[in-house]
Amino acid sequence: MSANPDSVVDAYRPVLLEHVARRTPSILKFGVIGYGYWGPNVVRNLQGIAGAEVVSVCDKSSVSRRRAHKAYPGIYVSADASEVITSSEIDVVAIVTPVWTHFELAKAALENGKHVFVEKPFTSNVAQAERLIELAEQKSLKIMVDHTFLFTGAVKKIKQLLQQGGLGKLYYYDSTRVNLGLFQHDVNVVWDLAPHDLSIMDYLIERNPEALVATGQQHLNGFEDVAYITLYFPDSIIAHVNVNWLSPVKVRTTLIGGEKKMLVWNDLEADEKVKVYDRGVNIASQEGLYELLVNYRSGDMWAPQLEQVEALRDELMYFVECISGSRQPLNDGAAGLRVVKILEAASKSLRKRGALVCL
Amino acid sequence: MSANPDSVVDAYRPVLLEHVARRTPSILKFGVIGYGYWGPNVVRNLQGIAGAEVVSVCDKSSVSRRRAHKAYPGIYVSADASEVITSSEIDVVAIVTPVWTHFELAKAALENGKHVFVEKPFTSNVAQAERLIELAEQKSLKIMVDHTFLFTGAVKKIKQLLQQGGLGKLYYYDSTRVNLGLFQHDVNVVWDLAPHDLSIMDYLIERNPEALVATGQQHLNGFEDVAYITLYFPDSIIAHVNVNWLSPVKVRTTLIGGEKKMLVWNDLEADEKVKVYDRGVNIASQEGLYELLVNYRSGDMWAPQLEQVEALRDELMYFVECISGSRQPLNDGAAGLRVVKILEAASKSLRKRGALVCL
Amino acid sequence: MSANPDSVVDAYRPVLLEHVARRTPSILKFGVIGYGYWGPNVVRNLQGIAGAEVVSVCDKSSVSRRRAHKAYPGIYVSADASEVITSSEIDVVAIVTPVWTHFELAKAALENGKHVFVEKPFTSNVAQAERLIELAEQKSLKIMVDHTFLFTGAVKKIKQLLQQGGLGKLYYYDSTRVNLGLFQHDVNVVWDLAPHDLSIMDYLIERNPEALVATGQQHLNGFEDVAYITLYFPDSIIAHVNVNWLSPVKVRTTLIGGEKKMLVWNDLEADEKVKVYDRGVNIASQEGLYELLVNYRSGDMWAPQLEQVEALRDELMYFVECISGSRQPLNDGAAGLRVVKILEAASKSLRKRGALVCL
Amino acid sequence: MSANPDSVVDAYRPVLLEHVARRTPSILKFGVIGYGYWGPNVVRNLQGIAGAEVVSVCDKSSVSRRRAHKAYPGIYVSADASEVITSSEIDVVAIVTPVWTHFELAKAALENGKHVFVEKPFTSNVAQAERLIELAEQKSLKIMVDHTFLFTGAVKKIKQLLQQGGLGKLYYYDSTRVNLGLFQHDVNVVWDLAPHDLSIMDYLIERNPEALVATGQQHLNGFEDVAYITLYFPDSIIAHVNVNWLSPVKVRTTLIGGEKKMLVWNDLEADEKVKVYDRGVNIASQEGLYELLVNYRSGDMWAPQLEQVEALRDELMYFVECISGSRQPLNDGAAGLRVVKILEAASKSLRKRGALVCL
Repeated sequence: MSANPDSVVDAYRPVLLEHVARRTPSILKFGVIGYGYWGPNVVRNLQGIAGAEVVSVCDKSSVSRRRAHKAYPGIYVSADASEVITSSEIDVVAIVTPVWTHFELAKAALENGKHVFVEKPFTSNVAQAERLIELAEQKSLKIMVDHTFLFTGAVKKIKQLLQQGGLGKLYYYDSTRVNLGLFQHDVNVVWDLAPHDLSIMDYLIERNPEALVATGQQHLNGFEDVAYITLYFPDSIIAHVNVNWLSPVKVRTTLIGGEKKMLVWNDLEADEKVKVYDRGVNIASQEGLYELLVNYRSGDMWAPQLEQVEALRDELMYFVECISGSRQPLNDGAAGLRVVKILEAASKSLRKRGALVCL
Repeated sequence: MSANPDSVVDAYRPVLLEHVARRTPSILKFGVIGYGYWGPNVVRNLQGIAGAEVVSVCDKSSVSRRRAHKAYPGIYVSADASEVITSSEIDVVAIVTPVWTHFELAKAALENGKHVFVEKPFTSNVAQAERLIELAEQKSLKIMVDHTFLFTGAVKKIKQLLQQGGLGKLYYYDSTRVNLGLFQHDVNVVWDLAPHDLSIMDYLIERNPEALVATGQQHLNGFEDVAYITLYFPDSIIAHVNVNWLSPVKVRTTLIGGEKKMLVWNDLEADEKVKVYDRGVNIASQEGLYELLVNYRSGDMWAPQLEQVEALRDELMYFVECISGSRQPLNDGAAGLRVVKILEAASKSLRKRGALVCL
Repeated sequence: MSANPDSVVDAYRPVLLEHVARRTPSILKFGVIGYGYWGPNVVRNLQGIAGAEVVSVCDKSSVSRRRAHKAYPGIYVSADASEVITSSEIDVVAIVTPVWTHFELAKAALENGKHVFVEKPFTSNVAQAERLIELAEQKSLKIMVDHTFLFTGAVKKIKQLLQQGGLGKLYYYDSTRVNLGLFQHDVNVVWDLAPHDLSIMDYLIERNPEALVATGQQHLNGFEDVAYITLYFPDSIIAHVNVNWLSPVKVRTTLIGGEKKMLVWNDLEADEKVKVYDRGVNIASQEGLYELLVNYRSGDMWAPQLEQVEALRDELMYFVECISGSRQPLNDGAAGLRVVKILEAASKSLRKRGALVCL
Repeated sequence: MSANPDSVVDAYRPVLLEHVARRTPSILKFGVIGYGYWGPNVVRNLQGIAGAEVVSVCDKSSVSRRRAHKAYPGIYVSADASEVITSSEIDVVAIVTPVWTHFELAKAALENGKHVFVEKPFTSNVAQAERLIELAEQKSLKIMVDHTFLFTGAVKKIKQLLQQGGLGKLYYYDSTRVNLGLFQHDVNVVWDLAPHDLSIMDYLIERNPEALVATGQQHLNGFEDVAYITLYFPDSIIAHVNVNWLSPVKVRTTLIGGEKKMLVWNDLEADEKVKVYDRGVNIASQEGLYELLVNYRSGDMWAPQLEQVEALRDELMYFVECISGSRQPLNDGAAGLRVVKILEAASKSLRKRGALVCL
């Protein structure tokens, strides 16, 4: 990893947290709203972190509440989110519920002086995201949007390669995220799967796309289950995201092409998730000898050892550190907003069968 | 294979050719124009077919002519295409040259009473294709466009599955065809790589797309080297083609999703190129119990044994049979035109950064 | 699955357990000795089974005891195995400790009237295994050896194929189980890794090997870290096990060849772990035309859908059922003894650099 | 590649041949005996080499002779090997026939003053190999045994890694070479498939094994179709070869483990055939803290770019150079003998169901 202590990559290193934790012995008290699929992972990881403690869990489903109580007899479990949001005991509210509920819950939490950890996508639209960011600033509270993938060994390694200029000038970012289901009942496949790709892309490319085109099709329940997004960035960088709920096989593959090197990230590989290829193409600009001037370069492949971490744990430790140290997280409300802006534009483009939407 | 002797799948069975060959002992004389990368394969395969014989090869490059002469001392080799086109000895002209030369060469060949076998894509634009089809009809000559993939074991098996209704109602066709280079100097990556996918899709789906959206980017030589095409078909069928000359790894993968089954065709697998998955999703239409009505079905996977054939050989045998029997080939000028129509529309859409183009 | 209610494959179906459980409402009380790597999985699964309850956990390590107490505040945790063994409250003792401790612990448990669930390999030698089996019989107690793999979807499916005669006459069983570490400090790689293969093989082949040859080498800590075992069975069946602690990559692949079909079981595949190939060789016995009589048969490949179960959970449910219903488990002491007999013979052969040892 | 001009790896670089070829403008005349499966490859490659020319091809089968004549109308084709062997025009005889014919043909060729290129395995037994080596020395003629794999990009790269000490002290060499058929009618699977592994191993390890153990089984035609060989080398190096004609899938994988690094060579991969893993195990020798002293080291993986060559072409160029420059080939009669010695010992061990045979 980079030796520069200020680098973005190193910013959430657990070691910093330990340091902070020693200075601030107080423990942040969390209330978690939503104990369905992902909520249990949030609770489990928070319980394993020195500077955090879950004091309350809330879910509308009695089955989920029973599960929570059985697993954590010491945590208070309720059906009423407002109990969590208004509790004077709680410092941070983690919102692990469907996207259409995010705004109201986060708004109430911020208004009650709580920091907010919220599932991706951040909100249902741009206006909501902007309102929450504004509110947090007014109250000097922190928002973290759960862009978990930024904290995986794979993404951290790719970020490092890009920061060191290893790939050279960037050409394209092409991601495929397809599998069978799970169909969502409130959003289409773009809102369900693409936030992963869009948040990673936002983190890695560090540029804002200028425009996008989204195409797709509905087959079953009135929401697009197959969709494709092309994003145009400055400097001829192009990105593409292929998301599909109707694929017989699971694919999680991203190709990133640069002038110097290219890489393939296959997140389903047990080992060697990231393969860096010393391959490329050079085209000289002289005229006259046109056909001779295309050079293909083919060299070694290298699969760097990746950190073996539970990304969610590192992310939550980093949030605890950000709150304790009054630092803005990488994946703050602004990062969440950038993703929502793209999702909103993609929906607009989809409705017009692929119209160009400027961002 | 289907038991129906009239079925499309069976139409080019070699056995029929043998039958025809016995009735018509005459041998078709071929002249081949272009002996670069693909031409030698055309000559080699024609030389191995009972009803065909190459009598003349033509190429502008002296290196290619020397290669041709060394390999086939008995074949007349020349630099002048008009010699081939006007030769009274020749029945069929095979045009294995860059796309921008197809129209003039094919037109001259047809005007001189020759049948024409022409590389894909058929022509540089729709008008040329229409003119050649018209000319062939007037002269009662046959055109075959070299959509080689239609004659592979994989595509024949997929066609058979679709004809038998094995996949059920079709949802999507999603193809990825990426690799490093070879950059072309006269066309972009869409015209270079997508004709494979478009001709296969045309053959398998048997429907005409209603509209398309194409996006892409140029990075090196003024032609798009990364591109994506979405095609809208009737009945909510959607197709997508991902082509890229800047990929560090070669990918040749097509996913086809249907209501009953789904398949993955990975053409780079040595064995088991086609895997059929007994998987799907059902959504019932009742209201009230909304969340319970999505059913995922997951069953066995089956990789059918594929015919081990050299597709080009089967294709050329089939063309000899079509000419001898005065039958129209599957991959005739009309099939070539359908592909060129899509390519032309894709170019138009690309120029407008992804505008919807109706077909 | 087979329709025959008496078939071995169906014997441990959970549905039977439910049936039994309804008749015998009493719950079996478990004491678990050993809470290192595997013990926590045993406890977690027992806690999820209707007819079982863990009342006591024991481990010599204070770290392990703290972990156990934190995870299960309601379970009594101690450092002294004799507390578990002699407790009048406990019906079954699960022994999840290193192999050299199995005999003493299991013997004491049986002498105190407890049923015994014991890690593989059963014991350190044949004499110990025989003594425990004898003791259990005298006391009418049940022993189950933790041959977990027998309860996986993959092994159950392969068993079913073999029972139905799908592979035809069996030719060979060839297993590779290699990875980097974990070095054991008390046993060599054969005793560490091969019990998996030997117990599966014993279950699937249903024959006793007649003789074996084991070769290997020590490189680091005085125990073989690379080893190969060939087992000769009746009827020309041959088996081979390749185990290695010094492999840079993890491999878990078994090939099973039969006269009619052959299969490959790759346990590291996420899906399609078992692939059945309709391939084979026939050699006719006529003389004179020798060279023409070898026929290779190559057909479809088929990857059956496998049960998605946690094998250890099914195994423990089955043990609860066996105890409740006074039935002998498949993986009883006798099955454990058959594996230990082979391990003991392999050690003997290894010491003589591969001498043939009859069984 | 190594900068050392005397290194074994560099010895057969084509560039040297060119150098020699310029000094010795004479062209070596080859006669090729055997035009079945492999013979055509030998002829084709010889025809493409500047310093070589095939003047005569011989085969007992009239079908093969017709094939040879059709492909090479200018080459004399006959049914009688003695014509080739006694022809005064011929400098080198290439023997591409079944192993049981090698000795008589090579002996006659050497006696007639011809250099000999002979298929692997060199001879049917050790005595024959020794007699041929002796004869070649007496006549100052060269023998090359066709250990083609030594000339592949993969083996050359692995040799280079070993010579540079990249893997550290060698621990093991473990090769699997299995597929469906082709059954041979005169030899078992060991004599058919293992010569590849044994010649590569001999080249890479540069040590002679001290003893071996071979096990296997016959199922169909009286020859072993499944076999396993363990070879004991000095310094605790162990090698193992798994060969099988009854595997439903083709496998060509070799693992090589060293103290510093380990590698996997999968010859069926299109790219990245050789993967080098920066992984290992260290065990410190102190007592008392036993369990803490095993260290696993896990690092990056690296797949070096390999030379894309036709190995047989490079091998034949190298043989031409060896003859012209009076140099002994790497893969001379002595190398062939070392392989035959192991095959002979393996047969002896197999007959005794795995007896240790000292070498």
